[in-house]
Amino acid sequence: MVGFDPDPAARELALSLGAVDQATDSVGLACESADFIFCAAPVGRLPHLIGEALEASSAEAVLSDVGSTKYEVVSAVGGDGRFVGGHPLAGAETAGVANAREDLFEDARWFLTPTKCSDSTLYARLLSVIVALGARPQKIEADIHDRLMATVSALPHVLANVLAAEASGEFDAEHRTLDIGPSFRDATRVAGSNPGVWTDIFATNREAIANSLASLGTRLHEASELIRAGESDAIHRWHEAAGEDRLRLLKAGNPERALCELRIITANQPGGIAELAGALGSAEVNIEDMSVSPAPDHTSGAVSIWIAGESEAERGAELVRNLGHKVSVVGANG
Amino acid sequence: MVGFDPDPAARELALSLGAVDQATDSVGLACESADFIFCAAPVGRLPHLIGEALEASSAEAVLSDVGSTKYEVVSAVGGDGRFVGGHPLAGAETAGVANAREDLFEDARWFLTPTKCSDSTLYARLLSVIVALGARPQKIEADIHDRLMATVSALPHVLANVLAAEASGEFDAEHRTLDIGPSFRDATRVAGSNPGVWTDIFATNREAIANSLASLGTRLHEASELIRAGESDAIHRWHEAAGEDRLRLLKAGNPERALCELRIITANQPGGIAELAGALGSAEVNIEDMSVSPAPDHTSGAVSIWIAGESEAERGAELVRNLGHKVSVVGANG
Repeated sequence: MVGFDPDPAARELALSLGAVDQATDSVGLACESADFIFCAAPVGRLPHLIGEALEASSAEAVLSDVGSTKYEVVSAVGGDGRFVGGHPLAGAETAGVANAREDLFEDARWFLTPTKCSDSTLYARLLSVIVALGARPQKIEADIHDRLMATVSALPHVLANVLAAEASGEFDAEHRTLDIGPSFRDATRVAGSNPGVWTDIFATNREAIANSLASLGTRLHEASELIRAGESDAIHRWHEAAGEDRLRLLKAGNPERALCELRIITANQPGGIAELAGALGSAEVNIEDMSVSPAPDHTSGAVSIWIAGESEAERGAELVRNLGHKVSVVGANG
Repeated sequence: MVGFDPDPAARELALSLGAVDQATDSVGLACESADFIFCAAPVGRLPHLIGEALEASSAEAVLSDVGSTKYEVVSAVGGDGRFVGGHPLAGAETAGVANAREDLFEDARWFLTPTKCSDSTLYARLLSVIVALGARPQKIEADIHDRLMATVSALPHVLANVLAAEASGEFDAEHRTLDIGPSFRDATRVAGSNPGVWTDIFATNREAIANSLASLGTRLHEASELIRAGESDAIHRWHEAAGEDRLRLLKAGNPERALCELRIITANQPGGIAELAGALGSAEVNIEDMSVSPAPDHTSGAVSIWIAGESEAERGAELVRNLGHKVSVVGANG
């Protein structure tokens, strides 16, 4: 496996970690005898990199990329039958080869956006490599991919940004200490995260994101009118429906492993979370997600632990009860 | 201590838990010889309950409430000098005396909204009781309280609701499996939570919330135009500023205990989180918050752990490194 990177330090690190067998600063050298070529770069720079790689590759090579938005890249690259756009849903906020992992793509969804120009034999070869990496390829149209990603991924980031800005404006106006609760912390967690990556995603998926934002703006305006009218029954119905929408989405993503929430009241002291996690871990109950809602003093509060599957969640709840804590299970059905 | 509750089961439970010395179904009996009276009920029902309690109380009694919004309650109760509106920031999503804790108010901020009608001697007595409970009282005007709460507490809930509804609409339109990432899960975590409590908060703080929503709507529209224009430098600046806003808010809330984030790459398997939490717990490093970002397969991913104070965070990072994990510390300054 040959790796290209313009940065000598990245090449050296990749070699020393065994992530590549050879490293080069030349796209041409990296591509000339490769069967499979994956281009990874900020989305804005992908079309140029892919163009260079296509030029340097043989007629039997298949090329793909791992950019987070697809329509702009796929359109820019054009009709070369050797190229198929791709987007694996894997990795975390950390970037660079230092964070490489052998199991990164294990069971990950990997979107692929072949067009009518794509060579079907080469596409089949690409599929087999992706399956060999342990991932689950899924074919999707580039524009639909971008619209779905705009909704479930970009929108939360934009909302986090505007909410942080709004609260900051309020704070400046009042010169006061705002008491930041867990709901605000969760809602703004991704505000300003990875500016390089997100600037690129916003810029290269701008139409779909702006349209999603407009649609959300309409819903926000309706919610505002509903709340201003102050009619409790209507507010109650709207609020409950949103909770049902969320659970339906989380279940739809992976029905057989729907997340259940364990709500636990506990003293939030050193070792408190360790005790909970330890009891679940030794019984092989996996924690999918965890959220701590401290009282403002941080010495006590509620811990929510999400576990996949209802029976597994019940097993986890029993373990937590045996530790002497109060726990309630909020099932996938509400 | 005498407790009033219309529900016999709640009275019985409160007695058996030792939360009250006597329990009664009569507001009159509960109040007639009390020096301090705290009214707890859904905000919509507070004015009536407080009115009954004032009628039944002596001239030397001081009355307060624990409702989440203040302007409507304080206005409805009117000018009785014995009443001071209150709002302790404590407790979790769980409700009822079954979740009572002795240390519930330990170090919690407790907003108080005395008016020019409030009797200053009685107000001072109320302060001393609240301090004796371990809380930190803070005087604030009812309307400013409601505006701040609208921004940092109600807004995240409304946004979670509209985002869940928006994604649900997208899902229905495409008949597809949406891949729900951690940013969406965090952003919608409180969608539809506690409909009873939140319907009341929305309805009784409707003007401030609707105004906050309108202001946020303007910001959202600006963000949408910024993204649609696709000018990377401007998007980058906006995105970074939002991250700085958030950090500033989190620091302002409690500067000496600013949260630092440890980003850890780990296998997400049973016992994985226990190992991390165990190492931190045995070294007395407290976990303020935790977030798991699984790869779509849930077998690996990134764990973020928030620790209060930079030196404490560095100590935690060292412990995690000693376990053989990669960890980076994102300080309170970015």
